[in-house]
Amino acid sequence: MANHTLLLLSQDNHHYRDLLSKAYLPGLTVLMPGNDNEIRAGLERADILLGEPARIRPWLKEARQLKWVQSTYAGVDVLLSPGTRQDYLLTNVRGIFGPLVSEYVFAHLLSLTRHLRHYREQQRHHNWQPIAYQSLAGKTMLVLGTGSIGQHVAGTARHFGMQVLGISRTGREAPNFDRTYQPPALNKVLPQADVVVSVLPSTPETRRLFNEERLNHIKPGVVFFNVGRGDAVDETALLHALRSGRIGAAVLDVFATEPLPESSPLWDMPNVVITPHNSGYSFPDQIVTRFSRNYLKFIEGKTMEGLVNFDLGY
Amino acid sequence: MANHTLLLLSQDNHHYRDLLSKAYLPGLTVLMPGNDNEIRAGLERADILLGEPARIRPWLKEARQLKWVQSTYAGVDVLLSPGTRQDYLLTNVRGIFGPLVSEYVFAHLLSLTRHLRHYREQQRHHNWQPIAYQSLAGKTMLVLGTGSIGQHVAGTARHFGMQVLGISRTGREAPNFDRTYQPPALNKVLPQADVVVSVLPSTPETRRLFNEERLNHIKPGVVFFNVGRGDAVDETALLHALRSGRIGAAVLDVFATEPLPESSPLWDMPNVVITPHNSGYSFPDQIVTRFSRNYLKFIEGKTMEGLVNFDLGY
Repeated sequence: MANHTLLLLSQDNHHYRDLLSKAYLPGLTVLMPGNDNEIRAGLERADILLGEPARIRPWLKEARQLKWVQSTYAGVDVLLSPGTRQDYLLTNVRGIFGPLVSEYVFAHLLSLTRHLRHYREQQRHHNWQPIAYQSLAGKTMLVLGTGSIGQHVAGTARHFGMQVLGISRTGREAPNFDRTYQPPALNKVLPQADVVVSVLPSTPETRRLFNEERLNHIKPGVVFFNVGRGDAVDETALLHALRSGRIGAAVLDVFATEPLPESSPLWDMPNVVITPHNSGYSFPDQIVTRFSRNYLKFIEGKTMEGLVNFDLGY
Repeated sequence: MANHTLLLLSQDNHHYRDLLSKAYLPGLTVLMPGNDNEIRAGLERADILLGEPARIRPWLKEARQLKWVQSTYAGVDVLLSPGTRQDYLLTNVRGIFGPLVSEYVFAHLLSLTRHLRHYREQQRHHNWQPIAYQSLAGKTMLVLGTGSIGQHVAGTARHFGMQVLGISRTGREAPNFDRTYQPPALNKVLPQADVVVSVLPSTPETRRLFNEERLNHIKPGVVFFNVGRGDAVDETALLHALRSGRIGAAVLDVFATEPLPESSPLWDMPNVVITPHNSGYSFPDQIVTRFSRNYLKFIEGKTMEGLVNFDLGY
């Protein structure tokens, strides 16, 4: 059996090493470097890397044996910029975030529609006062991105009786969506949506998709989510739409610059909810399960899960 | 065709009259009384009443022609107390609250598990700091009451990957539940549940079901919901369990006394969320749809939806 060497380049190296030691990974040596010199030494031998894309990127050039990178994130855009090496297999962890992102979206959406913040304020004053609300049932959600995350969010929306529209590059039918469209239809579809959820990756096509012109097509009072990539939204245009009330509320987990700079006016907008890019989280045990399955495919020369197409960017 | 007369005894009489005027209700005269004298005059003729149970109760004795009461609430316990008239058909609106109560339960549950309150506090300080969380997937929810509301809550829990246990009088299998038990099994089942949701009606069997002894069986740190009836819970025992940390958080929509007295110590507990009995809401259009279907059954002598069994109390 051929031998392979995995070099860990993650912020959770210890955790990954422990989990990997219990997994079935025939012929695999796992290296956990303690410093840059050990990384350099490891890169002489390692044909596999596992870690966060931003941590892996600076070492790519020195990885002479590199055949495969398993990203611990779904978003791998930092590995896709022009001039970056692309002569290896890159797999992300798409497919495991759907349930977590669904939880995030509906935590925030239901928290808004059911006035949790107002009830909390009333409770402080011992004030018993019902607030009128509407059900999600019968409302329309537009999800941009109909991959596994978008499908899970759509399935949850459907469970709550919403109509669900989708936008994807191909516009192909996707599970849990009532209708799907290609990007040129976006301006026509936007006015129908009470809730807009972007789970879009960062690609040349998605960058600044939500610019000033686009936001003019949005239904007044919409609840807008960005749980994909920050650069899909022009933050200046978003601020205008928030200040004018065109956007009723924005729930933002991702930003053009992360962490969101302390000076950003978004922090203090009353109708903005900011979370620090963790709507989905890479639980190491899930990732090791994924890595182990992929490793068996890798040694058998089969197609791995989450294989990234360098041309499409996801 | 026989003629029938409906007297409106609701807080939304105008709204109901307008909606009823557009419904198909052959042979029905709708009376909207403006004052007590008009109520008395109406009761001479009306064989049908529609309204809130507490508003109907004081007039029951004078309703000489009464054949049917359509409650606009699911809870009809005020019409069931000993000595109260029971010689008519009583229908509640069970079956329409499931989606709303599901929204309520998961708004609050996800808001807790995904730390919305903490992120809001951090946002005030422009603080970008991820907080660790766990998914609902793999957790266990116990739902007390496996009727239509319980089933909807269970279905939502299942959608989020939870295991769902149920307690009902009969212990019969019910849709969306992994296992159902009869009340005597409660002490054995409670330690398994990460989340407990009571949707129980008020009956002699459910009163003070959650007393001090029972709460000792609960899994430490549990999230406890009461969206059924307040008297299922001994509030003094609940306070002890909240203060000791045995109950991690309680989300309460119903109370022994409503409105919850301003002096109740529950208001100021940091791990208690109080809402003013509106996890479900009787949207008049839904109720008129239900009433219209029931009216056609009524005139044909068929069994109506939501017919209450005076002996069982629901």
